[in-house]
Amino acid sequence: MNNILIIGAGLCGSLLALRMAQRGFEVTLVEKRPDLRKVTQDAGRSINLALSDRGLRGLRLAGVEEEAKKLCIPMNGRMIHDAKSNTFLSPYSGRKDEYINSVSRPGLNMLLLDEAEKIPNVKIIFNHACEEVDLENASAVFKDFNTKKELKIQADVIFGTDGAGSAVRKNMFDSHKFLFSFSQQWLSHGYKELEIPATENGGYRTYKNALHIWPRGEDMLIALPNLDGSFTVTLFLPYENSDYCFANLTTPEMVYEYFNKEFPDVVEMIPNLADEFFTNPIGQLGTVKCSPWHSFGKVLLMGDAAHAIVPFYGQGMNASFEDVVVFDEVLSSLQQPLQKKEVDWNIVFSEYEKRRKKDADAIADLAVDNFHEMKEHTAMEIFQRKRKLETVFEAEFPEEYYSKYSLVTFKESISYSEALKRGRAQDKAILNLLDDGKISEEMSLKEKLELVKKETEAILHDDEVAFG
Amino acid sequence: MNNILIIGAGLCGSLLALRMAQRGFEVTLVEKRPDLRKVTQDAGRSINLALSDRGLRGLRLAGVEEEAKKLCIPMNGRMIHDAKSNTFLSPYSGRKDEYINSVSRPGLNMLLLDEAEKIPNVKIIFNHACEEVDLENASAVFKDFNTKKELKIQADVIFGTDGAGSAVRKNMFDSHKFLFSFSQQWLSHGYKELEIPATENGGYRTYKNALHIWPRGEDMLIALPNLDGSFTVTLFLPYENSDYCFANLTTPEMVYEYFNKEFPDVVEMIPNLADEFFTNPIGQLGTVKCSPWHSFGKVLLMGDAAHAIVPFYGQGMNASFEDVVVFDEVLSSLQQPLQKKEVDWNIVFSEYEKRRKKDADAIADLAVDNFHEMKEHTAMEIFQRKRKLETVFEAEFPEEYYSKYSLVTFKESISYSEALKRGRAQDKAILNLLDDGKISEEMSLKEKLELVKKETEAILHDDEVAFG
Repeated sequence: MNNILIIGAGLCGSLLALRMAQRGFEVTLVEKRPDLRKVTQDAGRSINLALSDRGLRGLRLAGVEEEAKKLCIPMNGRMIHDAKSNTFLSPYSGRKDEYINSVSRPGLNMLLLDEAEKIPNVKIIFNHACEEVDLENASAVFKDFNTKKELKIQADVIFGTDGAGSAVRKNMFDSHKFLFSFSQQWLSHGYKELEIPATENGGYRTYKNALHIWPRGEDMLIALPNLDGSFTVTLFLPYENSDYCFANLTTPEMVYEYFNKEFPDVVEMIPNLADEFFTNPIGQLGTVKCSPWHSFGKVLLMGDAAHAIVPFYGQGMNASFEDVVVFDEVLSSLQQPLQKKEVDWNIVFSEYEKRRKKDADAIADLAVDNFHEMKEHTAMEIFQRKRKLETVFEAEFPEEYYSKYSLVTFKESISYSEALKRGRAQDKAILNLLDDGKISEEMSLKEKLELVKKETEAILHDDEVAFG
Repeated sequence: MNNILIIGAGLCGSLLALRMAQRGFEVTLVEKRPDLRKVTQDAGRSINLALSDRGLRGLRLAGVEEEAKKLCIPMNGRMIHDAKSNTFLSPYSGRKDEYINSVSRPGLNMLLLDEAEKIPNVKIIFNHACEEVDLENASAVFKDFNTKKELKIQADVIFGTDGAGSAVRKNMFDSHKFLFSFSQQWLSHGYKELEIPATENGGYRTYKNALHIWPRGEDMLIALPNLDGSFTVTLFLPYENSDYCFANLTTPEMVYEYFNKEFPDVVEMIPNLADEFFTNPIGQLGTVKCSPWHSFGKVLLMGDAAHAIVPFYGQGMNASFEDVVVFDEVLSSLQQPLQKKEVDWNIVFSEYEKRRKKDADAIADLAVDNFHEMKEHTAMEIFQRKRKLETVFEAEFPEEYYSKYSLVTFKESISYSEALKRGRAQDKAILNLLDDGKISEEMSLKEKLELVKKETEAILHDDEVAFG
């Protein structure tokens, strides 16, 4: 029971391969794309991601946290850009040591592949697309991109870490031997990546250590810094039925009209705006949930293959890395004192899904919530008052108060599902206390905090009584 | 723009065909199964359904309400059977005139087919399974079950009313020309139908005018009366991981052990219990949601094809019939003063989905809620106290109070989504007032009602502030 086949060598698959090899398993890692360390790929062009505490915990488990941090640019808060090009920095937390990191996806992926390859019991095969998985027998057939030849790999167990469009998951969906619950939900918005290049001497054209955001109601632009001085910019825009949308931004004139109106400071920073706009593809924003994640004690889905989420909480990669941490914990709790060869994978997979599923669902829902919050709420006065109050709470009472964002992003000791429950109750408590005028200026900050905590507990209690 | 193709001649498709023909359209209705008026089919064996106000409204629209009522047996409440075979009747409403009806699915389907066939502009084709739908061109290919020949039908628009496993919907799912959000969720329980036969002289073996229910925590048995004196019994049972489940009820001895323990009064009423148990198939309980329901202004999904729900609110057929009512309203509001041939189907379909989608989602969620409530809550003291209070409210203040169940089942003037929102808030208000001891015996019933109403409004207000 030692041979493990991992399908998909993205961030989750690479970290999983590394960790499972460290545990002594024989690992074969198969990737449909070329080796991104040898071939420059569009798919890995300039995409960067937000790496935060839950992700770092996964990297720490595999002993690569320090190396990974060299690829990171700390972002201490959101730099909000209004329509008149005014900016203000909204910190992610009232605690000084809490920030998120901008990291290059291909850079981090390369690091993980390098580390995995150093271990003798890891074999990595690129350019092989998964065509079919025999779920009951733990074998899979791949097609070599170059020779077009088929390769069949027989394993003891298979991990599907092949991302949001997972071929392994599709085999589960199409199998009619068990009931497979499945959901794919698309947002009404798509996204397009653009680039703010570095200055001629390699400097940053705007403030380096922030996640920049231009909230405009229905639309939104964000930018994350890269090590080379550039920023990767992402435009989130409705497909249709809006004054400006992908359906009507069809000419350079329209693109410039739109950007000049909504993001004038960005126009100055992107020299080839229209070119980039029409060259780069429109990406889709979807949430995928499914259950069970495993079948026949032979195959398990992890990472985006099991739970693809929209990017608005910056938790996609972090959730995938946390998957590896939770899986490793389950393996440790169930494997000892057994030998490796005696692993009962069916029990391991069941226990893993039991522990993890509710948290994967929670971060998916939180990410969709945040899509609406970032678009709409950042401009609403009551939400700004809430945010201000929470920042002061976190600064003055760092051990006593964590905002929903902080619970999700910095408090990896509690689960996503707990963060969702508590975070939503806190938000509801503060918003209603503000709306009812119950938080008055005469109160001390401590009194305000106690009131919020009491109201939060009342909300949690009332929900518990009604919904269990 | 006059030729309408309706795929699926079940309850929704038959009513839609009848109504569209009454409006003057040329209707072709295609069904994969044989004509159930000529061939006795297992699929239509003895299944009965609960018909309530929303469904009756659809039948009324098509002028067949009175005929349909002849097929109905009124059920005034739930007859609860405890493990010691004690029974008590829990009325569906505190208002005397509110009840639901047990009706035969094939009986009602035959009535609708008969009525549709009377109209010259309706053509019905049986034994033709849909193989492919050209979504952009409103044509579909069918295979004749007997001759195996293919038949292509070209229409102006197509309605997919082919049920939970819709072939039309599958064409939308597999099309990659637009983003199709889709969800299928299976419960951990399956169901099996059994029959309590009529007595030798055609009488009923238990009380006729009730929906019988044997709640047992994880498991549940229900029974609805048929016109011939029999009852159709449905067992809801987990597939696995339970003391008694489909996975371990594998011998007649096990089946009798289980029924004797949990449902002793039923054993006496089903002479061939084990035979029936092993002959009848296990059914699956799933919720299907999707969006968009329409594509290219040419194809629209309705009924279970668009929104299959679990049966625990008795609203599946009622929701489908209400679909036809809402669609008819949209057509009326947009068609006049246009001539038929000028219908802009894209606008009609969009407007219909906009009005209807949130309500289809709501009844799907309510039905899953009720699965848990029926299994677990009926045995919990606080839920029984709530139910008792609500029944008195409805009896004493029939114009002022509607329980969640009554809002959904009897108050067709408000939508499912409104019923969900208000019903959940009311439930939460009452449960918390009871839990906090705020409803005291000294209070008059009117005072209790006012307190519940006030608390409900406060809950709705707080949610509005926090979640919009």
